[in-house]
Amino acid sequence: MIETERFAKQMEFIAEIDKLKHVVRQSKLTDCSRQENDSEHSWHIATMALVLSEYSNELEISLLKVIKMLLIHDLVEIDAGDTFLYDEEGNSDRDKREKEAAARIFGLLPIDQAKELTEIWEEFEAMSTAEAKFARALDHLQPLILSYHNKGWSWKTHKVVKSQILESKEPMKEGSKELWEYAKTLLLRAVEDGFLVDE
Amino acid sequence: MIETERFAKQMEFIAEIDKLKHVVRQSKLTDCSRQENDSEHSWHIATMALVLSEYSNELEISLLKVIKMLLIHDLVEIDAGDTFLYDEEGNSDRDKREKEAAARIFGLLPIDQAKELTEIWEEFEAMSTAEAKFARALDHLQPLILSYHNKGWSWKTHKVVKSQILESKEPMKEGSKELWEYAKTLLLRAVEDGFLVDE
Repeated sequence: MIETERFAKQMEFIAEIDKLKHVVRQSKLTDCSRQENDSEHSWHIATMALVLSEYSNELEISLLKVIKMLLIHDLVEIDAGDTFLYDEEGNSDRDKREKEAAARIFGLLPIDQAKELTEIWEEFEAMSTAEAKFARALDHLQPLILSYHNKGWSWKTHKVVKSQILESKEPMKEGSKELWEYAKTLLLRAVEDGFLVDE
Repeated sequence: MIETERFAKQMEFIAEIDKLKHVVRQSKLTDCSRQENDSEHSWHIATMALVLSEYSNELEISLLKVIKMLLIHDLVEIDAGDTFLYDEEGNSDRDKREKEAAARIFGLLPIDQAKELTEIWEEFEAMSTAEAKFARALDHLQPLILSYHNKGWSWKTHKVVKSQILESKEPMKEGSKELWEYAKTLLLRAVEDGFLVDE
């Protein structure tokens, strides 16, 4: 009974998403030993959601939906690659590349599940709900935490300054004013500690 | 307001669990390029839960609870290390080492959250609920999928034969008869393809 076409599709998806473990990000781990990959990042922020949901601006959110978003939000990067937040050229055609990737990767699933995960991913991308806004805040916060702990490796390597980070991370406040305030405090501390240039 | 003792504890936990990315497992990725780590494994099975929950023996389960379990189930291995399922010596004092690890790692959190995550972890370990049984089935299934795709690297390297796998994976059937049937089929196929010794 399990050897149905439906199950075969689900197993194909499960094997395919193993590739997320190969998508290398522009953040190093807290101990600076190596760069993080997308699957590790996704696990980290999904687990962060378990302990930080009280800081969502909107308290009546579905934690399950937030976690679903965080688990699948980077799957499109299996095809489209990781685009560094501060890479203007790479971000110009990111939308198109990621939409094609979503169609292919979620399209491996049975049609009802492909539809559900595509809709969740689109909701996350559009930041159109309280869940998506809070999920995005966590997605923005986590690399700041790693970068602070590894003494600004990513900021120094890519010559990113404080004003650029503030500008690109500001959408955090739509999901969590409190986590946004914390992010700003962390960046100030990074400047004081010499990990980040105050420009 | 965010700079409370409560928040400081939550941030300490979040930085600490980054170490899960260093805990190397006895499975290689599907393409056999390198061994998987615990954070990648946890992400993979949490995402599997999103698409396979229909195969739980008990259909009225809380998917959120299953995913919480899967996200945190291996955190104890930050201190206790990964114990290979077929390592009898390593498994003899595993319980003690993992309980101490749980006390330290979950204990970083505010007391209400430490209690919640400890209870969820204990529930998973005891397989005492339908959620824990289903979560365990996924935890057992995922390395089989990786091992089949990488032509049995782990089985060959550690000289594990089919009967050992069947015996250790049998608890799967308490969470999902269907996934257990599939696991048996996959092992038969692995024998036919020469990836696994039929003993």
